[in-house]
Amino acid sequence: MKVFFEPDKVAFIGATATHGKPGRSLHKNLIASFGERYFPVNPRGGEYDGQKVYQSISEIPEQVDLAIIFIPSERVPGAVEECVRAGVRGVIIQSSGFAEVGPKGKELQDKIVDIAHSNGVRVWGPNCMGSINARKKYVMSFMISNMWEGKLVPGDISLVVQSGMLSAGFLMAVLGRAKFGLSKVCSIGNKADVDELDVLEYLIDDPETGVIAMYLESINDGHRFLKAARSTDKPLVVLKGGYTEGGAKAAVSHTASIAGNKLVIDGALKQAEVVRVDGFHELLDTARVISQFGRRAADPAKIAVLTFSGAAGIVSSDIIESMGMKLAEFSPETVARLQKVYPTWMPPENPGDLYPALEINGPTKTYEEAIKAVLDDPGVDGVLIHIFALATPLILKAIDNRLDDLKKKNKPIVTWLMGDPEVVMDAGREIEKRGIPVMPDIQRSVKTLAAVFSGKK
Amino acid sequence: MKVFFEPDKVAFIGATATHGKPGRSLHKNLIASFGERYFPVNPRGGEYDGQKVYQSISEIPEQVDLAIIFIPSERVPGAVEECVRAGVRGVIIQSSGFAEVGPKGKELQDKIVDIAHSNGVRVWGPNCMGSINARKKYVMSFMISNMWEGKLVPGDISLVVQSGMLSAGFLMAVLGRAKFGLSKVCSIGNKADVDELDVLEYLIDDPETGVIAMYLESINDGHRFLKAARSTDKPLVVLKGGYTEGGAKAAVSHTASIAGNKLVIDGALKQAEVVRVDGFHELLDTARVISQFGRRAADPAKIAVLTFSGAAGIVSSDIIESMGMKLAEFSPETVARLQKVYPTWMPPENPGDLYPALEINGPTKTYEEAIKAVLDDPGVDGVLIHIFALATPLILKAIDNRLDDLKKKNKPIVTWLMGDPEVVMDAGREIEKRGIPVMPDIQRSVKTLAAVFSGKK
Repeated sequence: MKVFFEPDKVAFIGATATHGKPGRSLHKNLIASFGERYFPVNPRGGEYDGQKVYQSISEIPEQVDLAIIFIPSERVPGAVEECVRAGVRGVIIQSSGFAEVGPKGKELQDKIVDIAHSNGVRVWGPNCMGSINARKKYVMSFMISNMWEGKLVPGDISLVVQSGMLSAGFLMAVLGRAKFGLSKVCSIGNKADVDELDVLEYLIDDPETGVIAMYLESINDGHRFLKAARSTDKPLVVLKGGYTEGGAKAAVSHTASIAGNKLVIDGALKQAEVVRVDGFHELLDTARVISQFGRRAADPAKIAVLTFSGAAGIVSSDIIESMGMKLAEFSPETVARLQKVYPTWMPPENPGDLYPALEINGPTKTYEEAIKAVLDDPGVDGVLIHIFALATPLILKAIDNRLDDLKKKNKPIVTWLMGDPEVVMDAGREIEKRGIPVMPDIQRSVKTLAAVFSGKK
Repeated sequence: MKVFFEPDKVAFIGATATHGKPGRSLHKNLIASFGERYFPVNPRGGEYDGQKVYQSISEIPEQVDLAIIFIPSERVPGAVEECVRAGVRGVIIQSSGFAEVGPKGKELQDKIVDIAHSNGVRVWGPNCMGSINARKKYVMSFMISNMWEGKLVPGDISLVVQSGMLSAGFLMAVLGRAKFGLSKVCSIGNKADVDELDVLEYLIDDPETGVIAMYLESINDGHRFLKAARSTDKPLVVLKGGYTEGGAKAAVSHTASIAGNKLVIDGALKQAEVVRVDGFHELLDTARVISQFGRRAADPAKIAVLTFSGAAGIVSSDIIESMGMKLAEFSPETVARLQKVYPTWMPPENPGDLYPALEINGPTKTYEEAIKAVLDDPGVDGVLIHIFALATPLILKAIDNRLDDLKKKNKPIVTWLMGDPEVVMDAGREIEKRGIPVMPDIQRSVKTLAAVFSGKK
């Protein structure tokens, strides 16, 4: 499996210099990734961008360990045969036109797997977008380069998706929103050979991966999945597509997935104690919050809410309780410390409505005192902070003054940032630079906190 | 009640020229709203911004019908007495320091109501942010003017909230995101006299209000609420704060609300067939989508999904079914028309994964054909369109070419717009100019569609 993420030398069958073709993007990405360890192949030969193009993989003078294929489906079996002869260890087929287009395509796909397997070569895809190793800046995918360039922040989150999510640059678009530290990203497509379980097992063993986030349309082997998930302490976040009848039907045409028995899958996911999510943004947000704070046990987690709006505090309280957590009861010390910034008429409670205190002391002092108090309070497991975007510069000062504390206490803190969208974007980046995740609404902020506290007891 | 939204002449007791004080913002807003029909009152007298300041309301030479009070709570009863003597019909008290701060405040509040009621004067607040009439551009609130100036789009949505949401400019921040046609907006605070039921009944009768959206921390009279809700066809969207124990406790300290028996309120809301939502953004998004398309019955609604990502189509299908709607079955005509733009290997299905067709025909032709087909299909009640932000200019062309059709068919269409946040912001505005709501994630897009189809059968 390692060859798919850390190949030594890579050939690309289907390299093209024609602008606008996906094969051109892939070619450029491979040059950027591997430089002289990359060998473009095209029957026409010649040169692209000053680099020699080989007419076949057998002409390459060095031993290639990974071949990427992106040519019309009917020519793929021949290409795989060549790859096998050339002694590669793995093949990534990014072309579509296989099992997802019907029985004839399925036949073609089976033929490829037969050829590869009888020679001990593993096949990734087809109908996929390949893989990315963000730590090494390898992009083995036909994604347009301006979708990923400058956006790959190395980190410990590995992400497994099926086909289309990457094709539309979905991942990169989402990453543009927030600091998101990535290790491996891959699109597994039709899973003719390598499947989600192979990748899962690889990522569980991968020292560069801390959190595994998966979008799955099917799980081929519930028992193997369960065994793998149980063998590790690495948090696993899963968005399962096709859990309704309509969704399952759609999954069959998408990546020829057999969604399998819903109950069996639900059971396996539950037993494996994976964190289940309901949407793409939520998948990524949950993964990055867990990457930040880890997954921990609490029964139930006791949350402090610091807000500038009584109404937002109430709605947060409702969502916290409906997600199985509870509002922390502030210690006498916390109450006394908050009372120092609160107006005398207002008894400090949780949720802490800081607005009246803000009017007296300004945002910096108020937030700083409040953050310090709840961090010190042993009855507080996690903190939800509401920030009004316009006040961010003043609240950042409060955060900076308490940065050592934040690190020392290591209590999960998530913020809901509210305000004019243009202000929110910049303000959010600044807050996240301090290692505090920012969420676009209260639900998401509470849900990600709940995921952090969903650890095995 | 009308005096609170359409006063003729307005006095403000507590007007100040001191920069940074909320009384200053309120004063400026009232000048902008009423010009010479506005009379500032402050015992110090003098002049602000070239406008005479009256030392007491009794000095004002004209008959004032609405008085706004924003002075320390202990001086409010005296001011209300003066207002009564001056013959006003309504008083809005924006000061805090009443029932929400404890028994002494409650006493003060009761005293005010006694004074007003024995003279037939109605009291709005205290501890509130007043009201806005977006149709007439009246802002009777201490909101900072740059939070609302240029952002009030007149429309038919009226919005009722309790205190804090407005204080932090929440409303305006959210409005900055999208075209949102407003009629009346108000913050009802402690509800010492005028309560959510008075406002609800007024808005039901208000010809300028088409959709009523409410954030409520309590409902004083379930039966009256139910009766009012049943008396109208105007859609009612409600976010109920304090539905859990923790939330209810927080509501008591916020606006001195007695959340009441949860089961009774749940029952009343259910019987009244209100659209219930779980968050602030959802409250506003749901209101504007319903304002756009009305609320209609369907059992179940049959939805067409047009996407650029198979995975997103599957997840959409799951959410559609889990929200009680279903995927439309395309008619043979629709299938034939889609097949014209689809590659031959791909049978058109719902969700419609347009990506392979896009690669052949480009986004404009593909989206135009697909939109036309599903609009014409009698088996399709509503449409969910996924748009990749970078392709928006080309997809806008498709929408513009089908704009007449869109209007004629009047089928609810909601889009999920995905991509780089900076591109999304501008692209979203362009799409919404065409009367098509844009949502930030699949869940929200499906949930708002479900709200449209939640009409009484």
